Amino acid sequence: MTYCVAISLDEGLVFLADSRTNAGVDAVSNYRKMTIFQKPGERMMALMSAGNLAITQAVKHYLNHPEPDSPSIWNVDNLFDAAQVVGDAVRKVRDRDAEELKKSGIEFNISLIFGGQIQGQAPTIYQIYSAGNFIEVTAETPYFQIGEAKYGKPILDRVITRSTPLKEAAKCALISMDSTIKSNISVGLPLDMLIYPKDELAASHLMVIDEKNEYFKMIHEIWGKRLRQIFAEIDDPVW
Amino acid sequence: MTYCVAISLDEGLVFLADSRTNAGVDAVSNYRKMTIFQKPGERMMALMSAGNLAITQAVKHYLNHPEPDSPSIWNVDNLFDAAQVVGDAVRKVRDRDAEELKKSGIEFNISLIFGGQIQGQAPTIYQIYSAGNFIEVTAETPYFQIGEAKYGKPILDRVITRSTPLKEAAKCALISMDSTIKSNISVGLPLDMLIYPKDELAASHLMVIDEKNEYFKMIHEIWGKRLRQIFAEIDDPVW
Repeated sequence: MTYCVAISLDEGLVFLADSRTNAGVDAVSNYRKMTIFQKPGERMMALMSAGNLAITQAVKHYLNHPEPDSPSIWNVDNLFDAAQVVGDAVRKVRDRDAEELKKSGIEFNISLIFGGQIQGQAPTIYQIYSAGNFIEVTAETPYFQIGEAKYGKPILDRVITRSTPLKEAAKCALISMDSTIKSNISVGLPLDMLIYPKDELAASHLMVIDEKNEYFKMIHEIWGKRLRQIFAEIDDPVW
Repeated sequence: MTYCVAISLDEGLVFLADSRTNAGVDAVSNYRKMTIFQKPGERMMALMSAGNLAITQAVKHYLNHPEPDSPSIWNVDNLFDAAQVVGDAVRKVRDRDAEELKKSGIEFNISLIFGGQIQGQAPTIYQIYSAGNFIEVTAETPYFQIGEAKYGKPILDRVITRSTPLKEAAKCALISMDSTIKSNISVGLPLDMLIYPKDELAASHLMVIDEKNEYFKMIHEIWGKRLRQIFAEIDDPVW
């Protein structure tokens, strides 16, 4: 499986993806689930994917090889139109593959998070469905998750608002990921994290986080320890 | 949906169930998901259920109305045999209903947690599937969850071992439930909690926890607050 989370804040955007892919427990491997599309100074977009890997790769192929003289993520002037281009790419793959997948008993299944900023527009994030339609983050729900989303949702619900500082949101995303990795073996390191300060129009804070990353190791150790500590400090029930 | 958790410890057993049932968001109501079967001093068994409510009620009917002169949860002398009786009741309901449910496009779907103690035996817990087969808790994984299990799994994974004291495990189950309720609207109060100290052979610590319960209110407030506090104390990432 997969776990990806993206957060939209007053200060900018945070994207975090794991890299474990599996087709059964005996076919586990690593594939990057985050792809950056950018023309520094003009546009920066990030795509994260959960679901069928072949569909994901086909979608990315179409995004990278647009038809001449048609709208593409490289030439539209706002992110809504770019999300439509991504949705159209999903539909193109579906039109080609869904029927054939069905013959093998496989559902056409993909979830995408797509976000970023185009010059002159506010940064934002969309979640794009298998049908090619999409929703945008709102002030009330400033984050999207795809894949194994449930384990890491409680901490996001408790901490994140639009006004959370960018670095704090990155820390929260990493704790959410750490909880997911601890409880679900199908989600694993390395992680790709993009911290995008508003108006930078380039992916200049892109990190690969593996077992050796000191910050993630610290989060992993400290968070578990502090959780057990505050757990111990709460009174036991009396009956 | 539903969230139920049961924990098996050196000191005894903990059972916790929510009570929200829904058939679509416009048909939400409360049904108790925990049923106690006991002959104080001889046997104490608790059953918790997730999945189709009609199936659950039919299973309970068969448990309460055993065939004369056949094994029942009231006369078997160990909990494994009692779990088999429960599994047989599930199969009886399936034989009667599964085909008919299928005609309405409904899967025969039920998950049960069944545990307790019979005089002269160690207390234990089983998870019983739709097929009527079952698994028992082990030293490595001393808890079972059914229903909306993922939100509340990280805290169990971090805190619970076989040697966790009974009251601490009850506290952990309540925190696990609180996280689930916060992140999933289909799980809700009131809760039924049974704390069973080994060898009591009676359900003497059975609590209904509603909005007014001071301890659960405290957990709900303090846990969220302390989480945000330890979150704030961890250094932000540097890039």
